[in-house]
Amino acid sequence: MKNIWRKTYLISGARVENDAEHSWEMALMAAVLVEHLPNTADLHQVIMMLLIHDLVEINAGDTFAYDEAALTDQQEREQQAAERIYGLLPSDQAKKFRLLWDEFEARETPNAKFAKAMDRLQPLLHSYYTQGKTWREYGIRAAQVRKLMTVIRDASAELGDLADHLIADAIEQGFLLE
Amino acid sequence: MKNIWRKTYLISGARVENDAEHSWEMALMAAVLVEHLPNTADLHQVIMMLLIHDLVEINAGDTFAYDEAALTDQQEREQQAAERIYGLLPSDQAKKFRLLWDEFEARETPNAKFAKAMDRLQPLLHSYYTQGKTWREYGIRAAQVRKLMTVIRDASAELGDLADHLIADAIEQGFLLE
Repeated sequence: MKNIWRKTYLISGARVENDAEHSWEMALMAAVLVEHLPNTADLHQVIMMLLIHDLVEINAGDTFAYDEAALTDQQEREQQAAERIYGLLPSDQAKKFRLLWDEFEARETPNAKFAKAMDRLQPLLHSYYTQGKTWREYGIRAAQVRKLMTVIRDASAELGDLADHLIADAIEQGFLLE
Repeated sequence: MKNIWRKTYLISGARVENDAEHSWEMALMAAVLVEHLPNTADLHQVIMMLLIHDLVEINAGDTFAYDEAALTDQQEREQQAAERIYGLLPSDQAKKFRLLWDEFEARETPNAKFAKAMDRLQPLLHSYYTQGKTWREYGIRAAQVRKLMTVIRDASAELGDLADHLIADAIEQGFLLE
């Protein structure tokens, strides 16, 4: 996890971050943003999802959310990885962790929706505070960002508004192109 | 947190790890080792402590647990850092996070004892699996390691036994000196 490098730059812009750093930041983000968590959700379960959500990348590697080609076989690669990685645990724990990851991936429950929203909002904040460094490097346009960020509004209207505001401001400042 | 470098090497030995990586690993460790958590403790609170426990190092820097000179003013440096860092949050959250960190530091409650045990066991595992890379680099002896690791037994007899076993084996293999 400490050697799986994402496309997201640190807010300093100095380097990209790895999955361990990303997971820690999101777990803490969820705790800080708990006022936006629906009453039907549980912070502990959200944090647990965020701590484990990228473990499959140990085998499957990081898939850039804007890489349409890589996304086609992402699910298959990650399912195989999950079999091996969660299978390393004693069977009762393996089952518990695997169910939690499956719930995260399905994004149907309030916990999973909120966890997935963190997984979108965190790189959005990093892109915003680095003046779109990742977006510029990969030629990402506003329509692509908006499409990915709908996940945030599904979890919280206020965080959805925040995402919209960041995108609009990035366009106005000229580091995200329509 | 992603730029605060510890003395602990990754298990690969390739580089030292930073506070964000360390915090993520320990939060996940606590979840995996939950069977050793006393009934009087609560995993969510332990994980929350582990996610925030090193935030003070943003100002105070990392203090090597074996550096006796640096330890003398560590508490003062970290208290000042806590005032500033938790003070960035809205006052209700600032109070909540600060109390949690104070509880961690005091190591009196079952939650704090378990969280502190993770904070000792994680670098011990890394030192063990890198054939004592940090110990050899700083000339750390078995008596110093044993002294620090008593914290683990205060949280769990089984994890205390594990720590003793790792230390004994490290001595036998010759990468930790009596």
